[in-house]
Amino acid sequence: MKIKEIGGEFALIDQLKQIVSMDRADLIVGIGDDAAVIRTAPEPASYLLVTTDILAEGSHFKTQWATAEQIGIKAAEVNLSDIAAMGGTPSWMFISLVLAEGVEAEWVHGLYKGIADRCRRHGVAVAGGDTTRGMVNTINITLMGNVSPHELCLRSHARPGDILMVTGPLGASAAGLGLLLEDKQPSAYLFEKHVAPTCRLDISASIACLANAMIDISDGLGSEVHHICRRSKTGACIDAGLIPVHPDVKAAAIMLGMNPLEFALSGGEDFELLFSIDPVNLKELEKTDVTYYQVGQITEMSEGVTLLTPDGNKIPLPGGYDHFV
Amino acid sequence: MKIKEIGGEFALIDQLKQIVSMDRADLIVGIGDDAAVIRTAPEPASYLLVTTDILAEGSHFKTQWATAEQIGIKAAEVNLSDIAAMGGTPSWMFISLVLAEGVEAEWVHGLYKGIADRCRRHGVAVAGGDTTRGMVNTINITLMGNVSPHELCLRSHARPGDILMVTGPLGASAAGLGLLLEDKQPSAYLFEKHVAPTCRLDISASIACLANAMIDISDGLGSEVHHICRRSKTGACIDAGLIPVHPDVKAAAIMLGMNPLEFALSGGEDFELLFSIDPVNLKELEKTDVTYYQVGQITEMSEGVTLLTPDGNKIPLPGGYDHFV
Repeated sequence: MKIKEIGGEFALIDQLKQIVSMDRADLIVGIGDDAAVIRTAPEPASYLLVTTDILAEGSHFKTQWATAEQIGIKAAEVNLSDIAAMGGTPSWMFISLVLAEGVEAEWVHGLYKGIADRCRRHGVAVAGGDTTRGMVNTINITLMGNVSPHELCLRSHARPGDILMVTGPLGASAAGLGLLLEDKQPSAYLFEKHVAPTCRLDISASIACLANAMIDISDGLGSEVHHICRRSKTGACIDAGLIPVHPDVKAAAIMLGMNPLEFALSGGEDFELLFSIDPVNLKELEKTDVTYYQVGQITEMSEGVTLLTPDGNKIPLPGGYDHFV
Repeated sequence: MKIKEIGGEFALIDQLKQIVSMDRADLIVGIGDDAAVIRTAPEPASYLLVTTDILAEGSHFKTQWATAEQIGIKAAEVNLSDIAAMGGTPSWMFISLVLAEGVEAEWVHGLYKGIADRCRRHGVAVAGGDTTRGMVNTINITLMGNVSPHELCLRSHARPGDILMVTGPLGASAAGLGLLLEDKQPSAYLFEKHVAPTCRLDISASIACLANAMIDISDGLGSEVHHICRRSKTGACIDAGLIPVHPDVKAAAIMLGMNPLEFALSGGEDFELLFSIDPVNLKELEKTDVTYYQVGQITEMSEGVTLLTPDGNKIPLPGGYDHFV
């Protein structure tokens, strides 16, 4: 049976989770959040966080668009963003490479320079890896980090009444990609957001001690809201009119004959944070240096996961990107 | 410049290590051993071990030869073997998959069943991963484990006078592959050793508390002896007549018109252990349930790394498999 016939990426992950299931009391969070959370010593010792992401040429990066350094930056940031989403601090990185026939050593050096640049910025050490030959250039990064138990932010801890916030304008990476795929030149802003994004480790710790739930926006806002609601057993209502969209995304949407909200809701790879916060914590949030945009709120599960459209209708919130559908 | 022009896989790794270099006092061993060794709490608390391996279809496995379960078994064992080589105990696994268009969900289930089988055998929990679409089926596994400081076995701790031992016959996986590549049927023993090997976690802990240096034989005995000597700043002499080779490997060598020693020295993927042990510890080793074969000894660096051939000549020890040369 094809993967899209069983329901796509997330249905597959649910099935695989069943196959490997094993109870361990020291596994605080396993498959299903941005990173695994492992207890290595009794609380209040910090938890170990582990995340892993695999990027394949053609699917996740194209060497005709991005330099080796930019590809390295993106590979690092994708993983750093997962640690940010848990409220954690990254520490150790492991890099596996499949290199295709004919790859120049200089390209691999560039890739590592990009990765090293972002690692040094966050005090992360590259401690190991694997390098091998294959048909398609592929990069897997595993990133470890840690988080103190009271700052851990899970997808599953949103509560009805929480306000949903995002940390920046959405859709820029997808709009940049959309233009590149049509052989149109994206603006410098859109291009940068697509080929060399920056995660929000700069503000994630300030949010983590105030938020109930947090997730990074890697598959589009729609998908991430669904993830939070599914894991928290809540509903949510997103107000389309509140979703922050950069003028360049609007301009790209016009060029491509699309609705800019599609980029924000279903595009992915924004690497901004989506978090749910109890209204009583808003005063504290205002005191931080975090820029945030309210996009909706968490509701009871029975109210469903909805989008309030600009014309005042409530529709089911569209999902985000699925690699297999 | 092509990777083979700079000196192959290990020269590339040396260059990449320079690019990402960062001093951290809590990194006991970084890039260059079977696994990274990280101090997470003051000794005598155990060290964290982390290893990662990436396998790409075509290069590391072929779906026409191996079932999905066998591929999963091999992917798990390759990593378990790295933890065994450090004297450690495996604990947490993270699996990244690139799945090609048209892959059936049942194939992915089989892969996970193979992985889960070997994980349960060793009490390892699969705690996370990533699943995405690409052009070539690719599996990256990151495996964590731990080891108590006094049982840690590094490549770099061999000393002149140590005896070099291996834990089983060598060359079977490479002989099996050699036959498959020539469309000849390998024996059940050779086929099993190639498609679904078993690492030596069954005996590694017994060796670790007695050995000075240890490494798993993934790139051929020749390469592994060179790794130990390079990292320990020693020489070594291997006696060709002492290298254990299974009768099926000898038979395969005749069919393929090769010297069976080539499979043992340069073939790779045996996943037996190579260790160096002080002769004073041999009495203790005899008391364990470890089966071992003396293949040579560690010498002063000035004596070089040599092979005593069956006709009594000393020649430079041939290296093993390099993905890029």
